[in-house]
Parts: sequence; C-alpha cells; structure tokens
Amino acid sequence: MTHIARMLDSHPRPEAAIDQAALRECIEACFACAHSCSSCADACLAEAHLSHLVRCIRLNLDCADVCQATGSVLLRQTETDWAIVRAQLQACATACRACGAECQRHADDMGMQHCVLCAESCRQCADACDRLLAVLPA
Amino acid sequence: MTHIARMLDSHPRPEAAIDQAALRECIEACFACAHSCSSCADACLAEAHLSHLVRCIRLNLDCADVCQATGSVLLRQTETDWAIVRAQLQACATACRACGAECQRHADDMGMQHCVLCAESCRQCADACDRLLAVLPA
Amino acid sequence: MTHIARMLDSHPRPEAAIDQAALRECIEACFACAHSCSSCADACLAEAHLSHLVRCIRLNLDCADVCQATGSVLLRQTETDWAIVRAQLQACATACRACGAECQRHADDMGMQHCVLCAESCRQCADACDRLLAVLPA
Amino acid sequence: MTHIARMLDSHPRPEAAIDQAALRECIEACFACAHSCSSCADACLAEAHLSHLVRCIRLNLDCADVCQATGSVLLRQTETDWAIVRAQLQACATACRACGAECQRHADDMGMQHCVLCAESCRQCADACDRLLAVLPA
Repeated sequence: MTHIARMLDSHPRPEAAIDQAALRECIEACFACAHSCSSCADACLAEAHLSHLVRCIRLNLDCADVCQATGSVLLRQTETDWAIVRAQLQACATACRACGAECQRHADDMGMQHCVLCAESCRQCADACDRLLAVLPA
Repeated sequence: MTHIARMLDSHPRPEAAIDQAALRECIEACFACAHSCSSCADACLAEAHLSHLVRCIRLNLDCADVCQATGSVLLRQTETDWAIVRAQLQACATACRACGAECQRHADDMGMQHCVLCAESCRQCADACDRLLAVLPA
Repeated sequence: MTHIARMLDSHPRPEAAIDQAALRECIEACFACAHSCSSCADACLAEAHLSHLVRCIRLNLDCADVCQATGSVLLRQTETDWAIVRAQLQACATACRACGAECQRHADDMGMQHCVLCAESCRQCADACDRLLAVLPA
Repeated sequence: MTHIARMLDSHPRPEAAIDQAALRECIEACFACAHSCSSCADACLAEAHLSHLVRCIRLNLDCADVCQATGSVLLRQTETDWAIVRAQLQACATACRACGAECQRHADDMGMQHCVLCAESCRQCADACDRLLAVLPA
C-alpha cells in the first residue's frame, strides 16, 4: 500500500463519487512528474550543451508547477468541486504532453538519462490524467 | 510602475506575441488572488461558525494552488508554450469563479470582510484570465 | 530503486560533497511529509469535532509549505549553496517537530488515523533532516 | 492600504503578539522577492551568456521556493507557532543574502537589469526578515 493510498484511506469521509484507484494513480503520477520535471530542469542546467536545453528547462518548470497544483487539488477529498478538478486535469495533461515531447526529443538526440526518465514521467502523468478525466462525475 | 511590470520590462527577449498590459494585469491578479485565498482560508479557521466554512476553506486552498501555478507560468517569458498557458488560464478562471461564488455567499450572509475581499480578488482574477485568453496567440 | 534515486542518479554532475543515501532519504521524507500534512489538513476539515483541530490544520499547512520548499531545494544538485540547505533543513526539522507533536496529541486522544500517519511522517522527516544536517559539508 | 494589509486587517482574531507593520512589510517583501527570483531565473535563461548564469538560476529557484514558503507561513494568523516562524525567517534571510550577492555580481559585471532588480528585492527581503526576527515573541 503506497503512502498516498494510506493517507486517502484515512479520510473520515472519502469522495464516494470517484474511482479510488484512478484517483490514487493520478495523484502519484502528478507528484512523481513534478519531481521529475524539477530534477530534469536542474540536471539540464549542469549539461555542457545548456544552450540547446532552454526550452526543455522552461517546460520543466511550467510542468512542475502545474503537476504540483494538480496533485494538491486531487489529494483533497473534502467538498470537492468537480469543475475545478476537470479543468486542472486538462491543463495538467496539456503541460505533460508538451514537456514530455521536448524531453523525448533530447532523450532521442542526446541520450540524456534525466530526459529519458522525465519523458516517461510526463507520459505516465498525462495518461493518468486522461484516465481520471474519463471517470469523473458530471 | 508595479514590481511585476519592472520585472517583465527587464527581460532580454520579451514575448512579442502577447499584449503586455493584459499579461501584466493577469499575473498581478493571479498572485493577489493566491494571497487572498490563502489568507481567507486562515481567517475562516479563526471564525466561531467554522463548521459552515468547510467548503469555503477547501475552495480557498484549491484556488490558491491554481492561481499560484498560473501566475508562475505566466511570469515566464522564455520559450512560452501557448497551449499550456491557455489550458492553465481556463483552469484558473474556473477555480476563481467557484471560489468567488462561495466567498460571495458568506459575504452576503455573514458579512465577513475576508470573504468580501476574497470574492473581489477571485472576480478580478477570473476576468483577467478571460481577457488574456481573448488575446492569446493561436 | 526509488523514483527520486533514479532522478538523482541521472544528474550529469552530482554533488560529490554529500552522502547520497542521507540526501535521498531526506528528499523522500520531505515530500512524503508534505503530502501527509496536506492530506491531514483536508481530513481534519471533514471531522465532526473540527473546532478542536484548528491548531492541527494550521500546523499542517505550515509544515506542508516548509517541507515542500525543503524537498525542492534538496532535489537540486547544481551549484548548491550549503548555507541555504543548512538553514532550510533546520526550519524543516522545527516545523515537523511542532506539527508531529500536535498530530500525536490527536492520535492519542481521538485515535484519528490521518493524525497517526501524519505524526509518523513528521517524525521521519525531522529525523531525516537531523541526519542530513550531521553530514553536510561545512 | 496594500492588498496584504487589507487581508491581514480582515482577520477575526489577529495575532496581538506581533508588530503588524513589521509583519506586513515582511510578507510583502517575501512575495515580491519570490516573484523577482522566478522572473530573474527565466530572464537569465534568455541571455546570450547563459553559461555564466547557472549559479544565478540555481539560487533564484531556491530563493523563490524559500521566500514563497516563508510568505505563506507569515500570512497565516491563526494559532501561530513562533519557533517555526523564527526558523523559517532565518532560512529566508540566508537564501536572500546568498541569491542577492550572486545577482549583485552580475548587476555589477554585466549590468543586467533583471539582476539589478532581483538583488534589490533580495536585500529588502533579507532586511525585512531581520527586522521581524528582532520583534518576534519569545
């Protein structure tokens, strides 16, 4: 049982309206992606060919902020507003797709391991957002 | 000249594609709303009739997180991805409208000054997001 | 191998001056504690005896902010300033000890599982900060 | 009357133990410095001589995180824990002094306006933290 699963499980009044597995996976994917993006931005700063990585760093920083906010909104289970959840999930999937594509380009071209891992986190998070969007209450 | 205007003005390669006044007003509205919402959540916690304010606190915390992320994305001027900006602005307008409506309800019913001010910040931020969305590059 | 370990391992120029196991454990403890505290604040909001939990929610929100900032600073490996790391680790241990003590009180009195888990995360994070402080470069 | 002053003024039970002017000035300085540092990191990314600015960007990102957390803790007025406030203010002053010194070096050497402004914000925030530390309750 993951840390997030244990916290969700301890809530006195969990959101009955939502698939708990899809919710937990999306929260974990958001926080993992926020950490990957923050770490990838920092690793890019230490690369010799830094000038080719400006767009990657910018997208990393944006994607980290968006994933962190999305994970924080999803973690809350009290009096959820589903319109906010829906719009923030859409923004998160958008940010992860853009950042993941940029990281994948550098993973392919230059084989940088931090971009390989970050592209993977971005894909997993975008997919988890899409899966949660598909089962959100109206 | 505001602090945000001075920082935007100091950028070596500002985004030519965007209306600078609409951008600056939206950044300032996002950060002001993040502060209003954080402060309103804390003020609600100190109210005697706290049990009526649970939904207000929840929306305040969500709206603060979403506005902070939106302001941070907008503040960056290097290699902007407009799809991310667009989706995050839509999420921000959604969060501000939901939080502002809840605060306005408590402003009307109980006359709490922190909810009056927070409802005002939420309206201003939602409107600023809409104005910026209307002039974003395609 | 954890997600944070894989990201740290992918950095092109890791900080040689620091014990990598202590660093990784502290980053993971900071982010886990930030999540526990955010989740505990939200779970407290849904409790019937909310009015007894005001101080707990306040400390949860502070501790989440402080742990998040500390984890973000520690995650970066490029051009580290050890004075910032040291001071932020001390602030984090202080916040975790205060929040953990409050959660433990509610765990003991009322047996709330979210406070049990959050007290545990706070203790682990405070201890991880202390261990890292003990091996920081001068 | 500033936005932060209006929000603090609307709190139902303000902290009597603290100098309100010093508190307000420090909150405003923390948030202004967080914005300056985020903006300076982004402006540095767009500079031609980016490779000389790696340490500046790293310190900007750390200082933004630390100032944001400090401002958020200070903004809360309900059930304050002064040990957390004290330790976080010390971390913030440390981060601002380190980041401000690095920005000042680039302001002097290369005359970059974003570093001039950011060095100024860092100095003001470090000084505001020191002034608040001097009047904190024991």
